[in-house]
Amino acid sequence: MTKTGAGRFFEDYAVGEVIRHAVPRTLKEGERALYHALYPARHALYSSDPFAQACGLPSSPLDDLVTFHMVFGKTVPDVSLNAVANLGYAEGRWITPLWPGDTITASSEVIGVKQNSNGKSGVVWVRTTGRNQHAETLLSYVRWVMVRKRNPAAPAPAPVIPELAGALAPGDLAIPRGLDFTGYDFELAGEPHRWADYDIGERIDHVDGVTVEEAEHMMATRLWQNTAKVHFDLTFRPEGRLVYGGHVISMARALSFNGLANAQMIVGLNGGAHANPCFAGDTIKAWSEVLDKARTPAPGVGALRMRLVATRDGKVGHTHGEDGKYLPGVLLDLDYWVLVPV
Amino acid sequence: MTKTGAGRFFEDYAVGEVIRHAVPRTLKEGERALYHALYPARHALYSSDPFAQACGLPSSPLDDLVTFHMVFGKTVPDVSLNAVANLGYAEGRWITPLWPGDTITASSEVIGVKQNSNGKSGVVWVRTTGRNQHAETLLSYVRWVMVRKRNPAAPAPAPVIPELAGALAPGDLAIPRGLDFTGYDFELAGEPHRWADYDIGERIDHVDGVTVEEAEHMMATRLWQNTAKVHFDLTFRPEGRLVYGGHVISMARALSFNGLANAQMIVGLNGGAHANPCFAGDTIKAWSEVLDKARTPAPGVGALRMRLVATRDGKVGHTHGEDGKYLPGVLLDLDYWVLVPV
Amino acid sequence: MTKTGAGRFFEDYAVGEVIRHAVPRTLKEGERALYHALYPARHALYSSDPFAQACGLPSSPLDDLVTFHMVFGKTVPDVSLNAVANLGYAEGRWITPLWPGDTITASSEVIGVKQNSNGKSGVVWVRTTGRNQHAETLLSYVRWVMVRKRNPAAPAPAPVIPELAGALAPGDLAIPRGLDFTGYDFELAGEPHRWADYDIGERIDHVDGVTVEEAEHMMATRLWQNTAKVHFDLTFRPEGRLVYGGHVISMARALSFNGLANAQMIVGLNGGAHANPCFAGDTIKAWSEVLDKARTPAPGVGALRMRLVATRDGKVGHTHGEDGKYLPGVLLDLDYWVLVPV
Repeated sequence: MTKTGAGRFFEDYAVGEVIRHAVPRTLKEGERALYHALYPARHALYSSDPFAQACGLPSSPLDDLVTFHMVFGKTVPDVSLNAVANLGYAEGRWITPLWPGDTITASSEVIGVKQNSNGKSGVVWVRTTGRNQHAETLLSYVRWVMVRKRNPAAPAPAPVIPELAGALAPGDLAIPRGLDFTGYDFELAGEPHRWADYDIGERIDHVDGVTVEEAEHMMATRLWQNTAKVHFDLTFRPEGRLVYGGHVISMARALSFNGLANAQMIVGLNGGAHANPCFAGDTIKAWSEVLDKARTPAPGVGALRMRLVATRDGKVGHTHGEDGKYLPGVLLDLDYWVLVPV
Repeated sequence: MTKTGAGRFFEDYAVGEVIRHAVPRTLKEGERALYHALYPARHALYSSDPFAQACGLPSSPLDDLVTFHMVFGKTVPDVSLNAVANLGYAEGRWITPLWPGDTITASSEVIGVKQNSNGKSGVVWVRTTGRNQHAETLLSYVRWVMVRKRNPAAPAPAPVIPELAGALAPGDLAIPRGLDFTGYDFELAGEPHRWADYDIGERIDHVDGVTVEEAEHMMATRLWQNTAKVHFDLTFRPEGRLVYGGHVISMARALSFNGLANAQMIVGLNGGAHANPCFAGDTIKAWSEVLDKARTPAPGVGALRMRLVATRDGKVGHTHGEDGKYLPGVLLDLDYWVLVPV
Repeated sequence: MTKTGAGRFFEDYAVGEVIRHAVPRTLKEGERALYHALYPARHALYSSDPFAQACGLPSSPLDDLVTFHMVFGKTVPDVSLNAVANLGYAEGRWITPLWPGDTITASSEVIGVKQNSNGKSGVVWVRTTGRNQHAETLLSYVRWVMVRKRNPAAPAPAPVIPELAGALAPGDLAIPRGLDFTGYDFELAGEPHRWADYDIGERIDHVDGVTVEEAEHMMATRLWQNTAKVHFDLTFRPEGRLVYGGHVISMARALSFNGLANAQMIVGLNGGAHANPCFAGDTIKAWSEVLDKARTPAPGVGALRMRLVATRDGKVGHTHGEDGKYLPGVLLDLDYWVLVPV
């Protein structure tokens, strides 16, 4: 019974190594429809071909988070099968939209390792890149995870801690070829608020909520071929299946339509924390805060740096307790750049 | 926190106003597959391209109720966000089938308003039209809802109550271009009963039942981008999420295959009542009654006016109590025209 | 109320009769996406068009089990509506892959009947064939079921018991046109194990598990237009909805990726037993045993005859008790041929 893989442990990662992840995936119209069934997604550019074409694109791309989930899912068997915790994200850049019919492959370069002082685990940093069938980069991002050691007696590697940007500079954002918001139809998109209407520091309560069901988060997680046991197997985790953190990201992003209907294309992921685990029965709500604003060279296209917070208690504004830790009602704290008509 | 919309209240509707609904939607093969996963749909014309082509159509259209749900979903933020009750439907006409790849947009004209005597709410009538990307009408129907007033002290508008047909006349039914049932394959369709075999007054017990699950009705409702809170958020409605009334319509219609396998294309909606709320755990069953019959000018194509009743107690025949109200076991009472091989 | 069918009873089957099953179905990209959402399917040939093309195929076919489920679903109204038990499968041969856009029709020839000694039921053998729109055979297999008699007093037919192969000979396996594993990319497929690495008698514990949800098995079963009441209607079966046996097959096959990632194409079904009923809440796990090995004439393509056992107790190796009956933790015992790079 040695045909199944046990996954990598901390001592299996060497800085500089490039891991080619398995099982390429072709995504088409079926995945688009499922995304709309699993999340209350309404951003017009991802809902309508003619709307996307009026914005200068050849057709409506698949949701930017589909790219993220799919690439992330590919990395699970190699990066997070023995992970104790998903610690953070940085420098996430969406370079090319994902079109129906595209095939995603993914690879990760190990860019940092640091053994923990307890000697039982360590932190591994990887820069993961997802590519389409033309070898164009769809998305790249840095993720770091805490991974168990197979053998606590194994010697600690020389620590390498990568220098990571706290946030992408506006000039680092890739604007999809052809994107043009000068003829943007705000009425058809659902809200009148343009880039100029958002102020740094402004908070938006997205009001709506969705109570999570087991069947839904499992279908989503499987769709991205993320097969981490904790999401599926109640015998492995009798206290309750853990909802894939990306399910919370997509749910919160979709809920943010109500107040951010014109925040169309996600182009940067500055950071993110899965503050607390989410389980079926939790009701996900979301609020946002405008962190920064920038113009882009594309016609009519501005960028907003947004903080997106998902909660299970519906509270808006407070995320941390006096001890500096996340409050138990907070599920997600995400920092991203999004393109908005000016 | 003023970026989110509170929806319209009774005093926000003026007769003659046309509301252009937001978020166009392109529908393709993914939505077709999901429809077959969510409902036990088996009508051959919507299941098989060659079967549809043998009936004179270019290919198999998306289910007629997909058009209805999608158009209805578009109207929710503008028409029913503050609705207390969905009161009725009339004059629903399917004009053009929905083909995979089509993009739906929707608008509604306010055709009636009448304040209630309590001064706290009123009834609003709208005629909603869904169109494809060629600006052809897919479907139009009248719906009326009871809506709360924002300000009870606001003056009552002059009442306008539209005159509505009790049922569409057969001559008002639009027959899809090319439809021809002269070579109809009854064996392949699943039942031998043709138009001539149905008698006015005849009742059919469709026998089968489906017990509703939360994940399924939420996926369906999201797919139509209907984001009314009551369907999704248990903190908003702790007594149980309300199942979208259209989910019951599609479930009952699909169940009606057993006895009405040849009732292929829905072309008219004469009226309908969501008699009682439906919740997860209810077992939906259905029965039908033949209300009227008509010939059409299309070769081999007849029309049946059908009553479709969905229940949660499986009882057939009785719908109203001695008080004239719907019995608690009745979920839906629908009156529609459907095309059947003669 | 005579429009609905009661299904066939034992005395309605005559050896030699060919039953043409109703409701053809066109399958496309939506069904592919749903398969990936419902099962943790990761075999690369069914996940990626470029991977399939590198194996000599025109594109990625739909999963072989989609063909099986869809054909099986078509037979339910004619074969198993009044079945007491699904007794076995034999001589299953996948002849032509199922491509997106194909339309499936199915028919069954009655090849055996034998009344039970109790006089109340009998066994019926049918050879079912699924075909595409070009009348090419996709799949054919023998199934036998125990069916109730309508009238216990009806005379017993002359018994006809077909001779069935215990297992397909390697020469009986149809290799898809063009299949060539000489350039197979094991890294991209997810595991290094090739045909030569598997030994007859070897067992593989597939480790992962999925706890079954009601919404998921119902969506899967509806997708195949299998509308047997027991899977959907809690009022019909208050002790719990029975999970469609094919759902367990697909779940176990998908779980077998972990250890059998290169077991790409299923080409033969030698036999199978649904050992015990499966219900929502059960956690499906799987293990495999190598039963036989064979070379094929296709370049780089070997065949493995595998036993796939699905359990709900996670136990590996034991399937039968001292009484010769299946242990209660066993759900499925399947015997199939699969194509693997040599």
